[in-house]
Amino acid sequence: MRAVIPFKKSNAKSRLSTLLCESEREDLAMSMLTDVAGTLAGSGCFDVVDILSTSPVYIENTNIVLTEMGLNEALNEYLRQMSSHNINEPVLIIMADIPLVSKKNIQDIVSSRADIVIAPGRMGGTNTIFIRKPQSFHVDYYGPSFLKHLAIAKNLNVEVFDSFNLSTDIDEVSDLAEILIHGKGYSKVYLERIGISLLARKGRVGVERL
Amino acid sequence: MRAVIPFKKSNAKSRLSTLLCESEREDLAMSMLTDVAGTLAGSGCFDVVDILSTSPVYIENTNIVLTEMGLNEALNEYLRQMSSHNINEPVLIIMADIPLVSKKNIQDIVSSRADIVIAPGRMGGTNTIFIRKPQSFHVDYYGPSFLKHLAIAKNLNVEVFDSFNLSTDIDEVSDLAEILIHGKGYSKVYLERIGISLLARKGRVGVERL
Repeated sequence: MRAVIPFKKSNAKSRLSTLLCESEREDLAMSMLTDVAGTLAGSGCFDVVDILSTSPVYIENTNIVLTEMGLNEALNEYLRQMSSHNINEPVLIIMADIPLVSKKNIQDIVSSRADIVIAPGRMGGTNTIFIRKPQSFHVDYYGPSFLKHLAIAKNLNVEVFDSFNLSTDIDEVSDLAEILIHGKGYSKVYLERIGISLLARKGRVGVERL
Repeated sequence: MRAVIPFKKSNAKSRLSTLLCESEREDLAMSMLTDVAGTLAGSGCFDVVDILSTSPVYIENTNIVLTEMGLNEALNEYLRQMSSHNINEPVLIIMADIPLVSKKNIQDIVSSRADIVIAPGRMGGTNTIFIRKPQSFHVDYYGPSFLKHLAIAKNLNVEVFDSFNLSTDIDEVSDLAEILIHGKGYSKVYLERIGISLLARKGRVGVERL
């Protein structure tokens, strides 16, 4: 069984630029990737963890697969390459910006008997998708990709995986609060190190820079 | 075992007022309450489902408990009343604005062996809390209540329940997209009836009024 994490380091997480400078955003993106990859490795579920990246990165226990393609093209080419090399094992596609993912989440997903397991992101996203037979599926990210993936899998047995951890992708400044509240990994340590902390005012929670 | 749903109908969900008028917000709040209460009743887990409300509402298979107190005071008085009447059964406190909750979510929570089960909301909230011994706990909502509840329960055995369904409280206009994408109950039917639909533009998802 294998896992693949698409990753883009350059100008990562531009919506965080009101709080974090470019190098901080890249460091945070690398910290989140390290958390996700570490959880995959620690889950004991995968023989191979590939990072499908537009630039070289080094993360323990993973392979780097360089690509210049966009997200959908790169992942669909990856699935096609598996088929054309007769690699018929299941594959988990997981986003690099969901640092709350736990080993138990991963173990629960891959122990599903469904053909396709989809963990939704907020606002119609798809943060993790487990594909039992890679030749039977293609991805279509952006927009309401959760609904698009359900449509693509309409003749397959689909399980929707209900997880707050997996739904929590880090895009906006307010999302950093989720890392500070629930995080257990490098991403939380990194934010604390650069002085990002939780702010509670008038019953609302946010983040601020100390 | 019992469940209690705090509810406030008057001027409900004020942050939705840019899209919905007051009567629509009240109707949506009632639809969400109906979804939550129906799921509790359908779960088969509870002998009693109480709605702790500031105004009379009628929902099948529930009791109405009128109160003029705020959220924390009303719930803590409810827990005290249980103790003073020697009602030592477990209680589930669940918010009225999480219409995605499923029967399986409820069954999974109440089958936990922990003293306290907390399902976080986004941004540090607490959307559902299961209290095995009501006399051992009090609530403290608003702000980072998830962290406050962990602190209150520091000498108890706590399980954090990981669920996107339960984390999704409907506060902002953009949250309505979650009902349209994932909803299966009255709330979704209601939004569709008043012409609220999903909008996907430039890779982002939102809602619009037709």
